[in-house]
Amino acid sequence: MNFEVTILGSSSATPIFQRHPTAQVLNIRERFFLVDCGEGTQAQFLKYKVRLSKITHIFISHLHGDHYLGLVGLLSTMHLQGRTNEIHVYGQAELMDVIELQLRLSMTRLRYQIIFHPIKHFAPAIILEDEDMIVKTIILNHRIPCTGFLFKEKPKPRKLLVNKLQQYNIPFSFYGKLKDGFDYRDVDGNVIANDELTISSRAPRSYAFCSDTVYDESIINEIRGVDLLYHEATFLHDMVERAQTTFHTTSLQAATIAKKAEVKKLIIGHFSARYKELHPLLDEARTVFPNTELAIEGNRFEVE
Amino acid sequence: MNFEVTILGSSSATPIFQRHPTAQVLNIRERFFLVDCGEGTQAQFLKYKVRLSKITHIFISHLHGDHYLGLVGLLSTMHLQGRTNEIHVYGQAELMDVIELQLRLSMTRLRYQIIFHPIKHFAPAIILEDEDMIVKTIILNHRIPCTGFLFKEKPKPRKLLVNKLQQYNIPFSFYGKLKDGFDYRDVDGNVIANDELTISSRAPRSYAFCSDTVYDESIINEIRGVDLLYHEATFLHDMVERAQTTFHTTSLQAATIAKKAEVKKLIIGHFSARYKELHPLLDEARTVFPNTELAIEGNRFEVE
Repeated sequence: MNFEVTILGSSSATPIFQRHPTAQVLNIRERFFLVDCGEGTQAQFLKYKVRLSKITHIFISHLHGDHYLGLVGLLSTMHLQGRTNEIHVYGQAELMDVIELQLRLSMTRLRYQIIFHPIKHFAPAIILEDEDMIVKTIILNHRIPCTGFLFKEKPKPRKLLVNKLQQYNIPFSFYGKLKDGFDYRDVDGNVIANDELTISSRAPRSYAFCSDTVYDESIINEIRGVDLLYHEATFLHDMVERAQTTFHTTSLQAATIAKKAEVKKLIIGHFSARYKELHPLLDEARTVFPNTELAIEGNRFEVE
Repeated sequence: MNFEVTILGSSSATPIFQRHPTAQVLNIRERFFLVDCGEGTQAQFLKYKVRLSKITHIFISHLHGDHYLGLVGLLSTMHLQGRTNEIHVYGQAELMDVIELQLRLSMTRLRYQIIFHPIKHFAPAIILEDEDMIVKTIILNHRIPCTGFLFKEKPKPRKLLVNKLQQYNIPFSFYGKLKDGFDYRDVDGNVIANDELTISSRAPRSYAFCSDTVYDESIINEIRGVDLLYHEATFLHDMVERAQTTFHTTSLQAATIAKKAEVKKLIIGHFSARYKELHPLLDEARTVFPNTELAIEGNRFEVE
């Protein structure tokens, strides 16, 4: 089952030729989520042959234009393409004002329903939960209200060892408890340890998206141990003061967060247009956290 | 002195790979105007190396997304690039609501002033006039209020023939009248015809932008004889009924308008995404109006 991030854009606000503002598509077990939607995102869907119709949920981190100005066009295109399935949109409450105003002015009556979920940005909250996964906000520290998103599979039930169940004559009615990790105690009081009867399933996978934010260690507990962390790295560390005043992060700082949070892999992005070459940003991050990659348009990152 | 149109985008609403929604830059005697601003227009400025800082006036025909969704991002980028010169924006009154809402939500305080000119769409009106030129609205017939724009140089004063002025002893005080085309009458009542003393200057040049509209002959008087007409041609004529119901024009109809208005040259654009090849649209138009060209991104059309 897939758990994969595709980068559609990773540039910061000032445009630069052939780089695009923030947008990512997540494929989590064949459910498709769009995270941020900078201007031109729908063109990136075409370029990288991702099917717009598959997207069921859209998460917008904050209302700086480079993170959402592609949204209304994308929603309109879904309409023009004949979509009838509802779509869930998560963002600051005022995002829905923008959508409604622009649809009203173009006299567009969507054939599908937008189910809007306003995000509160005071404390982390679970904003989506089903039997397989959760999505939780991460409170970021930016010039305007801004949240990251943690996508996390739920732990799977332990797998039963059928031959052992037969050998110990475990009653069928106890199988559920075994899957949840309980030991078995028979009528004579003998205990058979759970790991004698089951093995663990694949570890739940996780992805944390953190853009835009100043360096802030308060997110570390929220993202600890994730398989994959996207963290903005707008500047090289020689511009740490500019990063501070604009509420952005340097590449070195992003790597420091990754190291302190003991994540498995780091992707850096949201690069300032001043960097024509991105390798210096990568090199800097790798001095602190070697397992770092650049968010380049079209790249896919899979969690095994 | 230049009089030139550069196509930045000419696709209709549904996106198609490597075609872009409507946007054009006009260079009229080194004054730079942007006409419509679909999503991704600022990226097209980068691609075709047009300097955003040179734009002084922006004209938005109507509030369908494919004609204006790039505007707020473009205005933000002007701000990020350090612009301090005011900019004039022309569009339906509600366009300013969109701009103000989005700037407020991103907490952007522009370093330059937007001077907004609301367009009335009931009758053609001169919306910009200076000593060299005028811009006049053209009332189009679309699903929502929509105006085209006529850009027209003012007639230049006639040029004085210095040797003739000396030969006839024309007093200096009459030179102004001669430039305006008056004949000279001397103290004895002898008339010297103006064209004995002056020659005409270069004819004033004109460009009419007409997108989006159903076929409507009521615009013909407004655009009669222009040097260059851009007219939408969303469909081939075998889809004339669809053109009618969506308030768009077929290629054949656009050419018919050009012919009836006796324009010198026609550019067709706003092509439906269904047409992977555009030559059938061009061929169809040329059966009626041979001097037709396609609006292809990057193409420049100069009026000599």
